[in-house]
Amino acid sequence: MRRIITISREFGSGGRELGRRLAEALQIAYYDQEIVTELIERTGFALDYVKQAEERIPVPLLPITTARTFGIGYNSVVEQQLSIYNHESDIIRELAEKSDCLIVGRCADYVLRDMDPFRIFVYADIDSKLARCREKGPDAKNMSDRELRQKISSVDKKRSRYYQFYTDNLWGDKENYDLCVNTSSKDIKKLSVLLAEFIKGI
Amino acid sequence: MRRIITISREFGSGGRELGRRLAEALQIAYYDQEIVTELIERTGFALDYVKQAEERIPVPLLPITTARTFGIGYNSVVEQQLSIYNHESDIIRELAEKSDCLIVGRCADYVLRDMDPFRIFVYADIDSKLARCREKGPDAKNMSDRELRQKISSVDKKRSRYYQFYTDNLWGDKENYDLCVNTSSKDIKKLSVLLAEFIKGI
Repeated sequence: MRRIITISREFGSGGRELGRRLAEALQIAYYDQEIVTELIERTGFALDYVKQAEERIPVPLLPITTARTFGIGYNSVVEQQLSIYNHESDIIRELAEKSDCLIVGRCADYVLRDMDPFRIFVYADIDSKLARCREKGPDAKNMSDRELRQKISSVDKKRSRYYQFYTDNLWGDKENYDLCVNTSSKDIKKLSVLLAEFIKGI
Repeated sequence: MRRIITISREFGSGGRELGRRLAEALQIAYYDQEIVTELIERTGFALDYVKQAEERIPVPLLPITTARTFGIGYNSVVEQQLSIYNHESDIIRELAEKSDCLIVGRCADYVLRDMDPFRIFVYADIDSKLARCREKGPDAKNMSDRELRQKISSVDKKRSRYYQFYTDNLWGDKENYDLCVNTSSKDIKKLSVLLAEFIKGI
């Protein structure tokens, strides 16, 4: 049986590390930034532009009426952002068809829904997320707890909006996942080994 | 390290069976109806009365003003229901202090919060729940799909209200659990063996 795993994760929950280690333990391909690299190669878009598009839902920069009055192609930004999502979805499908793999983020659980992926959501309580951000993120060291909380909340809000826009499902709603793993006070390395054994048996 | 596991579950998700098999696989005590039996022994309450109290949050039968006017002890029902919850909580704490164990329902995750239990929430999609109810429940065979859906929804609403009343937390909200397991299209027996290995390693 094909083994396709998708990981969605709250910012600071250690979900990306868990995904990488899980793929290693299962000896399957791991895709995260690799999807962006492939997208850039195919489309020629700039890295920063793609990163930005991955965080935002497409909204016209100008109200439709203003754009019409001045004859501005108000839809071009929207269309380009939609095209990034569509390109990424194509890449995700191609990768999943090629071999067993684990894919982080990018609505992969929804994009691959016809391939019956094992869908994991990784989350943690706010104290664990603050601690993990401070431990792992170089940006976090100059931030107060309040600023870091705001950053965590803001990234998750963007992920939630992005997911809901493209899938019409609620991000983080357990109904959309096979397993939701709380990493609070847990060792990610140990967790990944245990999860790998669990998934092998499923 | 002590191993205390709590299971909360949606009706029809197979959570009770998963709990029983998980306790067996881990060779630890399993408590579900045993808590009610112990409560009846201690208090002399009738089984039906306890069962009813376990499904309802305490609300006075009469409005306070009416009860006062007629000098009725409007609070006695409420107090008795609260007392059932308190007795059950005492029993749960005593059992958890005695040995490693797995406890199903009865807000045990909250009651035992100081003992750091491993808190599992078991859920499934509605089609799986309907199928499992038909397979396991003798009552389900005379019900239409619509009636069975209504029953599932009604039991879960009661569990949700009960949990929220006593814990002030949201029932089924993943933040309150260490692991949320979707049993849709899964074999409960296999799942329990895999989960046992996972928990042994935690």
